[in-house]
Amino acid sequence: MSSIKNRRILDVLNGIPVDKTPVWIMRQAGRYLPEYKKTRAEAGSFLDLCKTPELASEVTIQPIRRFDLDAAIIFSDILTIPDAMGLELKFEDNRGPYFDNPLDNIDDVSSLTDKNTDTLEYVAEAIIQTKEKLNNEIPLIGFSGSPWTLSTYMVEGSATKEFRKIRSIVFKDPEMLEALTKKLVKSISEYLVMQAKAGADVLMIFDSWGGLLNTDNYINFSLNPMKEIINNLRNNQITKNIPIILFTRGGGIWLNQISESGCNAIGLDWTTDISTARKIVGENISLQGNLDPCALHGTEKSIKEAASKILDSYGFGHRHIFNLGHGIDQYVDPENLGILINHVKEYSKKYHQN
Amino acid sequence: MSSIKNRRILDVLNGIPVDKTPVWIMRQAGRYLPEYKKTRAEAGSFLDLCKTPELASEVTIQPIRRFDLDAAIIFSDILTIPDAMGLELKFEDNRGPYFDNPLDNIDDVSSLTDKNTDTLEYVAEAIIQTKEKLNNEIPLIGFSGSPWTLSTYMVEGSATKEFRKIRSIVFKDPEMLEALTKKLVKSISEYLVMQAKAGADVLMIFDSWGGLLNTDNYINFSLNPMKEIINNLRNNQITKNIPIILFTRGGGIWLNQISESGCNAIGLDWTTDISTARKIVGENISLQGNLDPCALHGTEKSIKEAASKILDSYGFGHRHIFNLGHGIDQYVDPENLGILINHVKEYSKKYHQN
Repeated sequence: MSSIKNRRILDVLNGIPVDKTPVWIMRQAGRYLPEYKKTRAEAGSFLDLCKTPELASEVTIQPIRRFDLDAAIIFSDILTIPDAMGLELKFEDNRGPYFDNPLDNIDDVSSLTDKNTDTLEYVAEAIIQTKEKLNNEIPLIGFSGSPWTLSTYMVEGSATKEFRKIRSIVFKDPEMLEALTKKLVKSISEYLVMQAKAGADVLMIFDSWGGLLNTDNYINFSLNPMKEIINNLRNNQITKNIPIILFTRGGGIWLNQISESGCNAIGLDWTTDISTARKIVGENISLQGNLDPCALHGTEKSIKEAASKILDSYGFGHRHIFNLGHGIDQYVDPENLGILINHVKEYSKKYHQN
Repeated sequence: MSSIKNRRILDVLNGIPVDKTPVWIMRQAGRYLPEYKKTRAEAGSFLDLCKTPELASEVTIQPIRRFDLDAAIIFSDILTIPDAMGLELKFEDNRGPYFDNPLDNIDDVSSLTDKNTDTLEYVAEAIIQTKEKLNNEIPLIGFSGSPWTLSTYMVEGSATKEFRKIRSIVFKDPEMLEALTKKLVKSISEYLVMQAKAGADVLMIFDSWGGLLNTDNYINFSLNPMKEIINNLRNNQITKNIPIILFTRGGGIWLNQISESGCNAIGLDWTTDISTARKIVGENISLQGNLDPCALHGTEKSIKEAASKILDSYGFGHRHIFNLGHGIDQYVDPENLGILINHVKEYSKKYHQN
């Protein structure tokens, strides 16, 4: 692992100065790339793509061939875990991922298995093959959804408009949610250790829906379970020193609490002002983000301005990984992403002198 | 106006101590009430209901007959303004409100009229009739959507999943958005003055989608236009002293800036911790909120606990109006709302002694 050539992201995560601000892009292997669409079509379904290591590793490195990125992120989906636990994951192109039999009560939770690493071996294999293809040029990020975020899909069946079913369960059946969370903490912890063992150099936890909760319930049902996972990773020989990034969409109001979770970096969505975030979390933790993904639909000039504003606003280069504040969308022109990445590299140099 | 008997909400908005925490509920006249559904069926369409003052005033006072509420809010829809400006508003029960011809460019904006008070006379008439029915027992709240929130619907055509069209226009065609905002500021200001003239005792601005923006763009395209409206109201004889409530969903990260807008109260969504909010905004402004609407799907015990937690967390009674953090949903059992309202009245007394 220590032989990786481009160490900018690893250095930023460990608080070591770098020569320019590193950058990677959430969902960088995705539908905005024509080569991705081609491989996706060859694979058959989205799930086939996730479950075929040759193809998953191929789409993982596609954006690396095009852009000057400082990390790859393994191509997969956060819903692989619920799928492995026994809820059969389905995809339809015009609907998104869903489960036919979402969880209704604590008995449904009891029937789920939390021993999933064997079933999820295909992710480990995709990581092994990706590491070979990357040839130690840049680090590889592994990831999982957070317990709360996975719970939302498992209870709702899909990403619904208001998430009213799970938000009501929080109040009327917290025991069910606690039982589910407990299984997910175990399953996610083992899944992330497996990814690190297979070669992931960094781990990221995506809490896409933590922002649905009030503060008390965010702490109870989202942040504390993520902390438990971080503790589990720190107590494991394989992952005790691995850098961990934690991203809660809508988490801008809880940065103080998130900064005490034990993670190395906090991912910021685009709504949070990064200079305000810096002041709240202090200097001992890194920040990742946080350009509005829709800025990529602007002109060359407006893209550069929006990126410069974030770099200027951050104010000094150390402990910042540039990224979007959410995943890149399928309608972005890849050329615009190239403009963004090159601009960040060039423009950020002045913040990394001496 | 000064003859209103229950002045709790007016007093809280003006910083005057009260005997218990006043309460009203966003969307309190709505589909969770069987009597509402009956009147709605009689009216024909949702729009017919909005545009028929007899029926609009009837549904406005339906929740007042059932519950010990401290204010009524005129039954209407935030999309009445875009409708009056020339975008024909349509409703379908299984789709929600939409416009067939959303705005694409600055020429589309030019064709909109910003002289709307004549067209919106039916809202004034509904207010006049409601005031008669209320017989000065409690105050009546008038309202409008914010310029940004109305822009989102006018550009997207409806509440879309990601609001990508308008979020991209923010970056690639800000001039279009500025032109639209300018017209909306004028139209909304005149609309709110008209409502006050007809008898509204309090005015509220709903910024349901401000939370989609990054901080700079929230200030530019949402908060500053709302400030302009507040200034316009303060410079008008009819509205110069009227209490104004400003609600940005997702605005918890911008409370500092919102508190300087000139409003009398800030509406909080349910994600923000109310004691933290209190510390940020200080003592010279009131707070309204902020129970998770899904708490109403809990048990009697859990509903009371959740409400007590907010009252305890606020810590002292003055300058607090109890409300949900978002509109009540159609699936709530009205009995549960009664439990909530009575509990708030009873439990909050201890915070209003001496």
